[in-house]
Amino acid sequence: MNHSQENNVIMNTATLLCSCPDRTGIVAALTSFVAEYGGNIIDLDQHTDNTNNQFFMRLVWDITSSRLSRDDLPGGVALVAKKFNDMRWSLSFGTPLPRVAILASTTPHCLADLLLRHQMGELPAEMALVMANHEDLRDLTEHFKVPFHYVPVDKKNKADAEQRQLEILRENNVDVVVLARYMQILSPAFVDAYEGRIINIHHSFLPAFVGAKPYHQAKQRGVKIIGATAHYVTADLDQGPIIVQDVTPVSHRDEVEDLIRKGRDIERQVLGTAVRLHLERRVLVSGNRTIVFQ
Amino acid sequence: MNHSQENNVIMNTATLLCSCPDRTGIVAALTSFVAEYGGNIIDLDQHTDNTNNQFFMRLVWDITSSRLSRDDLPGGVALVAKKFNDMRWSLSFGTPLPRVAILASTTPHCLADLLLRHQMGELPAEMALVMANHEDLRDLTEHFKVPFHYVPVDKKNKADAEQRQLEILRENNVDVVVLARYMQILSPAFVDAYEGRIINIHHSFLPAFVGAKPYHQAKQRGVKIIGATAHYVTADLDQGPIIVQDVTPVSHRDEVEDLIRKGRDIERQVLGTAVRLHLERRVLVSGNRTIVFQ
Amino acid sequence: MNHSQENNVIMNTATLLCSCPDRTGIVAALTSFVAEYGGNIIDLDQHTDNTNNQFFMRLVWDITSSRLSRDDLPGGVALVAKKFNDMRWSLSFGTPLPRVAILASTTPHCLADLLLRHQMGELPAEMALVMANHEDLRDLTEHFKVPFHYVPVDKKNKADAEQRQLEILRENNVDVVVLARYMQILSPAFVDAYEGRIINIHHSFLPAFVGAKPYHQAKQRGVKIIGATAHYVTADLDQGPIIVQDVTPVSHRDEVEDLIRKGRDIERQVLGTAVRLHLERRVLVSGNRTIVFQ
Amino acid sequence: MNHSQENNVIMNTATLLCSCPDRTGIVAALTSFVAEYGGNIIDLDQHTDNTNNQFFMRLVWDITSSRLSRDDLPGGVALVAKKFNDMRWSLSFGTPLPRVAILASTTPHCLADLLLRHQMGELPAEMALVMANHEDLRDLTEHFKVPFHYVPVDKKNKADAEQRQLEILRENNVDVVVLARYMQILSPAFVDAYEGRIINIHHSFLPAFVGAKPYHQAKQRGVKIIGATAHYVTADLDQGPIIVQDVTPVSHRDEVEDLIRKGRDIERQVLGTAVRLHLERRVLVSGNRTIVFQ
Repeated sequence: MNHSQENNVIMNTATLLCSCPDRTGIVAALTSFVAEYGGNIIDLDQHTDNTNNQFFMRLVWDITSSRLSRDDLPGGVALVAKKFNDMRWSLSFGTPLPRVAILASTTPHCLADLLLRHQMGELPAEMALVMANHEDLRDLTEHFKVPFHYVPVDKKNKADAEQRQLEILRENNVDVVVLARYMQILSPAFVDAYEGRIINIHHSFLPAFVGAKPYHQAKQRGVKIIGATAHYVTADLDQGPIIVQDVTPVSHRDEVEDLIRKGRDIERQVLGTAVRLHLERRVLVSGNRTIVFQ
Repeated sequence: MNHSQENNVIMNTATLLCSCPDRTGIVAALTSFVAEYGGNIIDLDQHTDNTNNQFFMRLVWDITSSRLSRDDLPGGVALVAKKFNDMRWSLSFGTPLPRVAILASTTPHCLADLLLRHQMGELPAEMALVMANHEDLRDLTEHFKVPFHYVPVDKKNKADAEQRQLEILRENNVDVVVLARYMQILSPAFVDAYEGRIINIHHSFLPAFVGAKPYHQAKQRGVKIIGATAHYVTADLDQGPIIVQDVTPVSHRDEVEDLIRKGRDIERQVLGTAVRLHLERRVLVSGNRTIVFQ
Repeated sequence: MNHSQENNVIMNTATLLCSCPDRTGIVAALTSFVAEYGGNIIDLDQHTDNTNNQFFMRLVWDITSSRLSRDDLPGGVALVAKKFNDMRWSLSFGTPLPRVAILASTTPHCLADLLLRHQMGELPAEMALVMANHEDLRDLTEHFKVPFHYVPVDKKNKADAEQRQLEILRENNVDVVVLARYMQILSPAFVDAYEGRIINIHHSFLPAFVGAKPYHQAKQRGVKIIGATAHYVTADLDQGPIIVQDVTPVSHRDEVEDLIRKGRDIERQVLGTAVRLHLERRVLVSGNRTIVFQ
Repeated sequence: MNHSQENNVIMNTATLLCSCPDRTGIVAALTSFVAEYGGNIIDLDQHTDNTNNQFFMRLVWDITSSRLSRDDLPGGVALVAKKFNDMRWSLSFGTPLPRVAILASTTPHCLADLLLRHQMGELPAEMALVMANHEDLRDLTEHFKVPFHYVPVDKKNKADAEQRQLEILRENNVDVVVLARYMQILSPAFVDAYEGRIINIHHSFLPAFVGAKPYHQAKQRGVKIIGATAHYVTADLDQGPIIVQDVTPVSHRDEVEDLIRKGRDIERQVLGTAVRLHLERRVLVSGNRTIVFQ
């Protein structure tokens, strides 16, 4: 099926992401299960990592005519999965939509981009809330009819602030957290609470220029291309699995301010794409890397 | 000097754009004139079109220590220009900023992008007004504190509507008109009134897919890349001088809706860049082509 | 499995390309067939064209432990295919390698590129021969130990020359014909003889600038990007299904000669990639478009 | 003038590269000098680094009608330069062409690319010789009628081998040394002897993945884009001024072998461009960065 329909219409579909050690018959077992109970496959993508002998698959099927209900399907998948050693899998349906929270600070470009993409139907999610440590982005957020939470963070109150943030996320049943140029480092406890579900945008082409002020570093080194990297947040700063990267050419004429301007365009593009891919359940994490089914 | 300072700070600069048949001594004459009266060149870019023997130059200089005032400079330039046959030139200063009007319809992505870029200081202009033939974009516009004018256009009232539009532009001293996915064709009279000052975004990689529904045409032809084109509007539809183009890869998996989604990202990027280049006075039109000094 | 092993090592694999009207159970039927007889899937990619309700699949499996021999497999696939209406399919094995002929004229860059890629193991094929209507490229070809055939073509002898060319192709059991900047138009009879197996490089971003001298056309129009298109040759000039396209930015400073120089880099990149994709059996033609499984 | 004519035709031109602390009147002084003695400017590009208050310029003029001969011009430029503190400048003419030596090892793609570009007239240079520490590339080199020197290098004889290499370079009046995937590290003495005239291709997007096996590092980190970097060689490995960089997208499907294959296309493109820019005298080094006038 086409992505558009999958993305833009709330379809009656099931999406299975799974991985296990590779062996004969995995695809046959799962696709036969789908066919037997009246499902029609609309997207299948698989990958085998030969070095580590790992199998990965994303399977989307139409359950309109399924003889297994949404309640029964997980049990059915579990039975098939048991045939294979150590299969990890997750099953989701087109609805309900995952609930997204955006953490921001004062810079509007990534936030505005995500809100606009959501408004235009690019992101299959409920935009649950925006949370920021400054008030600057309240108006922008509220223009898009999204609740805005102001949670000030300073060095002294950081632990308390994180507690407050986590409470707000829980109260609002948030599934995915997006850091839209949120300039604070999250504690390991916060990262743990949303492991594999926090997406950050780093304003460089990682692993080049980790840490602070990457555009200043880029100017200093005299690179001819700058980039941005969307990645899952892990305990190790700037080391999480990379989802999307993109770049743009620069020259000696570009001062740091120009790099920052050009970088904004890449940052929002990369972050918007990564969030969409995650929400469409196209991303599997394997160790410190991602499998992105496009 | 660096572009950032030129763009982001309202500097005490003069910018000369000029063209004439090529011959010896043009650069020397103009740069000597600048130096003699205490100006310091901060950007010079020239181009010679050998096929047509035409010389083009953009010259920016700091007039802080100039012994010629803003009132005197045009006369001085005119004297130098007289030494060369048929020199066409225009002189401008960092202030007052040119006044921009955006014409839009119902699609928000290009409009939002321009308003955000302006808010972030990327566009050296006054955002005079937004004018649309629908009310959909009023809220977005007003969020950015820009006046919104609703001028309905239908087949019967088209001439009257254009009259009204031109009045509004004149009353507001508009210098530059940007068509941000404004889906109406402008009459030759309208185009004449703002010749070389109307920028349009066409949602294809011109000259491929002129006319209506370019993404449908692209899907039909099975291209592997789609693009967008920002150009000056002329009487011939989709034939005006091209300012900026960019592209993005697509595949058989992309349905028309995906092309439209991917296209939006290119459209706003291309239009935003073209408007900035025009406002920074980096674009010279030569026949049906542009010289873009970057 | 990884592509490298698939491409670089002559593997004991079967590759099935198939298409048919979409319905439930196609993937299950084919993957179950593979699993039942001891095959291990190493790559599966499928696509459904919802607009036309067509299903497309590429399936690669390891037949090292297969209980069906290479001779038996086609019969087995045929039995499965019969379950589905109008399934078109083709089955191939890693060996013997397809035999490629390159048609060239006087320009060396695309030919040199293909010969070098083949030497470096990028193209899973036997390089059967190079055929040209000039002697200029004989030395280059022979440096790479590939037979060179000189078949002069002029207006008067064109039909005879094509006869001679077809004879040479047949005598050498050629499977795939690559036009590496071969500047002659092939007759419908020639195209028929190798339908879907002739790959051409057009030096523009089709459908922009069809016909002769596309770089001159590009300069004339003042585009800011130029491109190249690899496509299957059909009876309609420059209208065949597009396999790969790519582009590069240009500016007013680029004269036609610069466009030609920049274009060469894109042409060889695009042609080399298209030939590799075809040889890896990653391309399915559907009407005037391609499905490219990457 | 257009670049093509400048590059492809041996023109009667002078090219001045200069830099000095910025102040009023530099452009005027130099362009007036050119005009006074009958020169016609065909390309002028300047840049001011505001942070360090440095002025940089590249000036190309036609000396066909010059009243100063090639012998007199350096003295004339020197007189003008004396008016400005610490001006560093170099003057060159379209002829004689600079003499290039390529150092290679066993991998042919970068060498073949440079030889082909030279044959097609893209590189304004004499191809003086190829020198390698293996015999593998002799045939390829000699196909292009370029002298091949075999200088074996091993751990024990490294100093002697470098002596021999330097002798060969000197005997052949080599101006520019290109390392075309030459896998040996040059000693500081060698680097000194050709300071600012040795161009290397590093197979990563520097500063990411310095050192050995960058494609393995890239696979390990799970990046979504790989690149290549052409830079001047300095005593610090992989730290020299960057001339050109480019990138290409990759995915989880790409094994190290695929990264190597994709990387080859970027490497040769980047190296070929950097060598051309250097030979056209478009590159000025400023500290650890380059000014590239395009």
